Amino acid sequence: MSYLPIQHVLKTVPVGTDVTIKGWVRTKRESKNAVFIALNDGSTINNIQAVAEAGQLSEETLKLVTTGACLAVTGSLVESQGAGQAVEVKIASIQVYGPADPDKYPLQPKRHSLEFLREIAHLRPRTNTFSAILRVRHALAFAIHKYFNDNGFFYLNTPIITASDAEGAGEMFRVTTLDATKPPLTEEGKVDYSQDFFGRETNLTVSGQLEGELGAMALGKIYTFGPTFRAENSNTTRHLAEFWMIEPEMAFFELEDNMNLAEDFVKTVIRYALQHCADDLAFLDNRLKEEEKTKKKEEQSELSLLEKLQFVISNEFVRLTYTDAIEILVNSKPAKKGQFQYEVSWGVDLQSEHERYLVEKHFKKPVILTNYPRAIKSFYMKQDEESSATPGPTVRAMDVLFPGIGEIIGGSQREDDFDKLVARMHEVGIEPETMWWYLDTRRFGSAPHAGFGLGFERLVLFVTGMSNIRDVIPFPRAPKTAEF
Amino acid sequence: MSYLPIQHVLKTVPVGTDVTIKGWVRTKRESKNAVFIALNDGSTINNIQAVAEAGQLSEETLKLVTTGACLAVTGSLVESQGAGQAVEVKIASIQVYGPADPDKYPLQPKRHSLEFLREIAHLRPRTNTFSAILRVRHALAFAIHKYFNDNGFFYLNTPIITASDAEGAGEMFRVTTLDATKPPLTEEGKVDYSQDFFGRETNLTVSGQLEGELGAMALGKIYTFGPTFRAENSNTTRHLAEFWMIEPEMAFFELEDNMNLAEDFVKTVIRYALQHCADDLAFLDNRLKEEEKTKKKEEQSELSLLEKLQFVISNEFVRLTYTDAIEILVNSKPAKKGQFQYEVSWGVDLQSEHERYLVEKHFKKPVILTNYPRAIKSFYMKQDEESSATPGPTVRAMDVLFPGIGEIIGGSQREDDFDKLVARMHEVGIEPETMWWYLDTRRFGSAPHAGFGLGFERLVLFVTGMSNIRDVIPFPRAPKTAEF
Repeated sequence: MSYLPIQHVLKTVPVGTDVTIKGWVRTKRESKNAVFIALNDGSTINNIQAVAEAGQLSEETLKLVTTGACLAVTGSLVESQGAGQAVEVKIASIQVYGPADPDKYPLQPKRHSLEFLREIAHLRPRTNTFSAILRVRHALAFAIHKYFNDNGFFYLNTPIITASDAEGAGEMFRVTTLDATKPPLTEEGKVDYSQDFFGRETNLTVSGQLEGELGAMALGKIYTFGPTFRAENSNTTRHLAEFWMIEPEMAFFELEDNMNLAEDFVKTVIRYALQHCADDLAFLDNRLKEEEKTKKKEEQSELSLLEKLQFVISNEFVRLTYTDAIEILVNSKPAKKGQFQYEVSWGVDLQSEHERYLVEKHFKKPVILTNYPRAIKSFYMKQDEESSATPGPTVRAMDVLFPGIGEIIGGSQREDDFDKLVARMHEVGIEPETMWWYLDTRRFGSAPHAGFGLGFERLVLFVTGMSNIRDVIPFPRAPKTAEF
Repeated sequence: MSYLPIQHVLKTVPVGTDVTIKGWVRTKRESKNAVFIALNDGSTINNIQAVAEAGQLSEETLKLVTTGACLAVTGSLVESQGAGQAVEVKIASIQVYGPADPDKYPLQPKRHSLEFLREIAHLRPRTNTFSAILRVRHALAFAIHKYFNDNGFFYLNTPIITASDAEGAGEMFRVTTLDATKPPLTEEGKVDYSQDFFGRETNLTVSGQLEGELGAMALGKIYTFGPTFRAENSNTTRHLAEFWMIEPEMAFFELEDNMNLAEDFVKTVIRYALQHCADDLAFLDNRLKEEEKTKKKEEQSELSLLEKLQFVISNEFVRLTYTDAIEILVNSKPAKKGQFQYEVSWGVDLQSEHERYLVEKHFKKPVILTNYPRAIKSFYMKQDEESSATPGPTVRAMDVLFPGIGEIIGGSQREDDFDKLVARMHEVGIEPETMWWYLDTRRFGSAPHAGFGLGFERLVLFVTGMSNIRDVIPFPRAPKTAEF
């Protein structure tokens, strides 16, 4: 191939070899005797140092070698005289591919705020922080595909544009080719979607789960990994309008199998990142330590990033029912002292503060909560046998809770009983006819099955230790934000 | 895990083991002495045969064991007495998870037309043909991720919703949350997109290339693999409104490197499918042979599916310029005899008939055509030095042409010269200011770079030997088609 990645040069090329390296200048430093150029090509967090003797390079060339300029450097790989690197390139010649005017190039070698870098998302992958995040993001994505492939799952591309709006998971984006100013109207004055591209109203998917179930009821084990969308007008550090979801669905899996899979899955992909992104994670670990130092003592995290990742992969997740969790919470110190912002009692949806109390204070381990009240969960979750042990009916739901981040995975065994499913649809106001195809899987050859969803950016957030979700996706989409 | 995939039972479980297998009934056959049930769980094209002695199963149970019903069968794995399988399960007990009323279940054991199966896309993965296609699709997707990961590329998720409409690659779907019937208008009577979710007009992406280039100019080598959209009102066997694209972009790659990569890439992923999907491809090879028999002799393919795949991986792709190809075509028999539907001369866009002539008749090898006329290619392609050897200016484009399918990959070296790029944008009517972020990669640290795009469904079509693109994606989206 046409160039030798710096990652490769630093790790495997023997000293004494003539090499041509290509990359972007991170810094240039001149001493009395030499010029030192730190080059990076994105293949690794580590720069390679290229050294020329003073006077060796023309003034004209040297003037173009500024932060952000792109170069090809030819020379010999030698042991480095300086500290900080084992090898360096003794420059024989330099070709400047593209300069970067220091008066205009926004990424000068100084600390930039994450807010500023979000404004230049097209350039921020050229910084250490964002290149590290994107390499870790890549490694996690690959680990996910590898995990499912190794375990007999088939990747299923569920549709992005969908006419299905039954899940009610959130507000949706409309997809249309109708005239924007004057759409055709029906006699009743409503938009005539029969004239739209798909002959009906269509939206961007909020989840591939329902179609994923169709796949599982034929192929056994499938997973989706694709973009999903929410048109919620919330400008927070935890929400994106466009994000990537992983949704495995498995025939013949019950709740227990689902929990085993979720735990093994998330541990395996985090372990993969630790093994394959050691340099990047060390950098991000350090970045977070610096950030933590600026916080008040009581807001600082007890664990460093790397410790938190080790914590997750080396602990068995605690499993308990929602009902048991509520009892713990009701009897907890913060509840008794009125320190929770939201009150907690059987039937309420748990807030982040409750989830974090369970994980970070009470168990000090990742937690899987199960068997939630039916009323606060989706219609497709399998109903538990009714029992006097719980104040109300429950479903076989499970949420995996992580330190710092709260819910990272949500899933359930799915209702496989046709009559119960239809009854529940009526209860929540879904017309069963609109989902005839979904019901067909219960009508014909139904079977126990289960699945879960993992928001990919939530995982990347957790593994990189970043705190704003807009910093772990290359080009974030949020209210009023669709540049690039 | 909760069940033993049939794939696993057939390949690795020793005879004599007690097993529980779960799956859907494909067929049931009763003889005087025994009942034979063919079960499939989607893990493999191969069914497992379960056998009970006559009278062993209750009439009630037997009545429920019909095509499409879902069962758990417990018994002992024994050597098969019959032909067609090495092992079978001697039934000890059966649990019927879900029946499939033979009067209502649409997938009876007979040949269904592909058209009919398209109407029930939610059930068609339960057929041999579609389960084979989806497993091959999975294997190809995994091979693609593996190839890029093995070769130091980073997976980059470029945005799906985009305000960028500059590429002009085709008609787009609008994404909006404005009131559909009465959108807010500006004083000039146009839709006031400043009130829309993103504060501007947004569409579904037609390509991730431009954002991919941003990634390559920071990380070196990236690839995208995500959904893309075209709102073209064309109801053909080759077009989808929603399809998946793979788009690698590489810093420091020139046209030659780009060709090397494309050839190695496509051969590697096809080789992977041949190695990992032998059973499914043998089935699809046979399916195609049967289909070919129904065609007229002169329309039958010379090569079987497996031969065609071998043909691609074992031949070096022929590389020649567009200009040389035109000369071959102009002097070809079909041109001289007036057998081409479209006339051919320097400057025209090649039609499928021309591409197929080159690949299937003239070279009998896959072909990479390069250096196309500038006027018929996109603004971002690198301009060749002007030369009297060609009748007009050319660009460093490349198209990879395959037998049967024509163009499977299209790519180019990208224009890295700021001034030439801006001049070309003006020529084709793009306002450079709207793409300030794209131009920034040429403004700051520009470098030679290249990339290409592969329509994933085109590849799946080629590898499975199917002829309608709606049959190689689980839930096709096309005009008036958005069910499921």
